[in-house]
Amino acid sequence: MNEEKIFFDNASTTRVDDRVFEYMEPYFKENYGNPSSLHDFGGPPKEALDKAREQAAGLIGAKEEEIYFTSCGTESNNFALWGLARANKSKGNHIISSKVEHFSIINPLKEFEKEGWQVTLVPVDKDGFVNPEDIKKEINKDTVLISIIHANNEVGTIQRIKEISDISKENNVLFHSDGAAAAGIIPVDVNKLGVDSYTFTSQQMYGPKGAAALYVRKGVRIKPLLLGGIQESGRRAGTENVPAIAGFGKACEIAAAEMDKNIIYISKLRDNLIKGINDRIKNVKLNGHPKERTPGNVHISFEFIEGESILLFLNLEGIATASGSSCASQALKSSHVLLAIGLSPTMAQGSVLFSLGKYNTQKEVEKVIDVLPPIIDRLRKMSPLYKE
Amino acid sequence: MNEEKIFFDNASTTRVDDRVFEYMEPYFKENYGNPSSLHDFGGPPKEALDKAREQAAGLIGAKEEEIYFTSCGTESNNFALWGLARANKSKGNHIISSKVEHFSIINPLKEFEKEGWQVTLVPVDKDGFVNPEDIKKEINKDTVLISIIHANNEVGTIQRIKEISDISKENNVLFHSDGAAAAGIIPVDVNKLGVDSYTFTSQQMYGPKGAAALYVRKGVRIKPLLLGGIQESGRRAGTENVPAIAGFGKACEIAAAEMDKNIIYISKLRDNLIKGINDRIKNVKLNGHPKERTPGNVHISFEFIEGESILLFLNLEGIATASGSSCASQALKSSHVLLAIGLSPTMAQGSVLFSLGKYNTQKEVEKVIDVLPPIIDRLRKMSPLYKE
Repeated sequence: MNEEKIFFDNASTTRVDDRVFEYMEPYFKENYGNPSSLHDFGGPPKEALDKAREQAAGLIGAKEEEIYFTSCGTESNNFALWGLARANKSKGNHIISSKVEHFSIINPLKEFEKEGWQVTLVPVDKDGFVNPEDIKKEINKDTVLISIIHANNEVGTIQRIKEISDISKENNVLFHSDGAAAAGIIPVDVNKLGVDSYTFTSQQMYGPKGAAALYVRKGVRIKPLLLGGIQESGRRAGTENVPAIAGFGKACEIAAAEMDKNIIYISKLRDNLIKGINDRIKNVKLNGHPKERTPGNVHISFEFIEGESILLFLNLEGIATASGSSCASQALKSSHVLLAIGLSPTMAQGSVLFSLGKYNTQKEVEKVIDVLPPIIDRLRKMSPLYKE
Repeated sequence: MNEEKIFFDNASTTRVDDRVFEYMEPYFKENYGNPSSLHDFGGPPKEALDKAREQAAGLIGAKEEEIYFTSCGTESNNFALWGLARANKSKGNHIISSKVEHFSIINPLKEFEKEGWQVTLVPVDKDGFVNPEDIKKEINKDTVLISIIHANNEVGTIQRIKEISDISKENNVLFHSDGAAAAGIIPVDVNKLGVDSYTFTSQQMYGPKGAAALYVRKGVRIKPLLLGGIQESGRRAGTENVPAIAGFGKACEIAAAEMDKNIIYISKLRDNLIKGINDRIKNVKLNGHPKERTPGNVHISFEFIEGESILLFLNLEGIATASGSSCASQALKSSHVLLAIGLSPTMAQGSVLFSLGKYNTQKEVEKVIDVLPPIIDRLRKMSPLYKE
C-alpha cells in the first residue's frame, strides 16, 4: 500500500532495511533454537547474539560485555532508572533529569516520587538545551543518578552530554543518557560522551521492532528489571528475541558503515524542507536549535492552527507526519517538550514533526513544499485566531 | 543445517510455523508504521494488533480488552507479580506460590522477600502436584496473591488450577497462573480455570520469539511494569513489536484450530517414546504424573549417570534434548523442580527432557529408541556408581 506514499515519520519508527530483514530470516525457520541450549540447535542463535553484541558495541564504541539486549527503548530506559537507582540507593534518594525527556523516563520518575525518591527536573532554554550548570547546582549529597536525553525525540536538539558527564564524574554521580533518537543517526561514542549507561534502539535505525539495548559501563552496579533465567549475564531474564536482536545487530553495523553518507544526504533534505516551508509559509517557527539538531528533524509550529489538522490533511495527500510524540499521539495533550522550550500551548498544539530518513528523496520534499501552503492557508482561513 | 536433525526440545522453544512467518512478513517491510500513528501508515499495524488481540483472547476464552502484549513469558510473569502485588499492597504483604515455579516467578519472589514481603512456597507431591489444601492452610489476612504454574515446564504436570482458584475466590485473594507451557498446547479457558491473570507465550506454540501476553481479568487492579507511553491501554509502555505480536496472534489461531489433532498426534509419539525407553533401558524413572502431563513431555531420570552427558551424546547423534530448564541450562545446578518432587540430587542430575512437538515424527521417536540404549549403557559402564 505504501509504495507511492511519503513517510516523514522516521522518528516514530523506520522501515526495516532489506539487508537487515534478509539477515534475520533464517532465525525464524531454520536457526530457531534457544541460544541457552547445550545442543547444536543452540549454536547458530548463540553465535547470532554474540555477533549482534559485537555489532551493537561497535556502533557506540563500547565493549561487548557492556551491552544488554532488551525488547525496546522503553524497557532500556526503565531498566537503567530502576536498576541504577535501586543498586545504589544506599547512597541517597535523589535523581536529576530534565523537562524534555521521553515518557519512558518521565513516567518512571513520577513513580519514583511516589516511592519516596526526590526528583529534580532541570529546565531547558528556548532551543531545548539543558544548561549543565543547572545540573551542577542541583547536585546534593543524596544525588544518585542524572538522566538526560541525548537527542530529543521531538525537536531534535542534541544535548551537550560531555559537559554534563564531566559534572557527573566530578560529583561521583551516575549518568544515564537516552540515546534512542541519536544512536545510529549521529556518531555516538560512549567513552567520549562519558556516560555510565546509554539506551539505544533498533526501530529508529532501520532495524526491526522488538530489540533495543542498554549499555552499562563495566564496573557500574545495576539491578535487573526482569528477573528469571540467567540470560544476558543475569541482567535481563527471558528468552532472547534472536531474530530481532540479530537484525538489530545488522542494523547497527549498517548504520555505522553508512552514517557519514546518510547524515549528508538526510541533512540536505532537511535543510531544503525547512527552507521551502520558510519561503512559502508565513508565521512559522522551527523548533529546536537551527544547527545542533538531528539530521532528519524538521519540527515546525504553524501559528493559529492545530498540528493535528495539518497532519490529517497531509495524510489525505499521502504524507505521513507526526504531531507530538508518537507514544502520546492519541492522548491529544500539549507536548511537555514544547512547553518546556517556552512555546505557548497554542503554538505547541500547532506543531508538526516531519522526520526524514534515508529512504526519503528530494522529490518527496518538493511534494510536501507544494502541498503544504494551500493546506495551511485553508486551515488558517477556518481559524478564528487568524488575521491576515 | 537442521533438516536431518531431530528437535526434541520443543519445551525450550519451537520452530516458527511457515503460515505464521508468512503472515508476519509484511509488517517488517511494508506495514512498518507505528501503530500509535494517526496517519495511514499506522493503520495496518494497528489492525494487526487488534486482530492479534482477538486471536490471543480466543485461544484462552478471554475478552480482547483483557489481553496485554509483552515481550516474553518472563516479562508477563514479572508484570503479573509486581503489578498485582503493588496495586493491592494496601491489603497485605503475603504471597503464596509453589516450589515448582519457573525462574521468572521464583526469582522475582526472592526480590519481594528482600523488600519486606512474606513469601510462602507450598510443596508438591512426587508427581509434581500442589495440594490445594496446602494453599488453603497458608492463606492469612495479609495474603494478596497466589501464583501457581499451570503446566510444569520441566516435568509436564498439569496442576488442578480450578481447585486452587476456588480457594482463592473463597478467600478473596488474587490468583495468577503461569501458562507458558500450557496455552496453545492444552485447552485453556481462563473463566473455567478461574484465574485473575494468566501468562502465555508465542515461542512455545510455533510463533516467533519476542511476543507473549498477560491476561488480566477485567476489573482486576494491576500496575504497569514498564512505564512510558500509553500503549496497551497504559499497562505496557513501549512501541509494540508488531510483526512478532501479529505472528503470535496467528500462532494462537492455528493452535486453537489444530489443538485436538496435535494433542492426539503428539501424545501418541510421547507414549511410544516412553514405552520404548521403558522396554529397552533399566533403572529409568518417568518424572511427573503418568497421565496428567502435557502431550509432548517425556522427562526421564536415568540412574547412575549425568543427564548432561546423555544430552551431549544424543547431540552427537543429531538429537536435541534438554537437561534441566533451558533458562538455567548453563548454570549446572540440580533442578529445583526435580528436588521438589523428591528426587535425590543424583537422580535429578541424571534427567533428560525430551519435549515433542507437532513437527516430530514416529520415525524420529524410533531413532531415539535405537540410539539411546547404547549411550546409556556406555555411560553407565563409565560410572563409578553403577553395578549391573
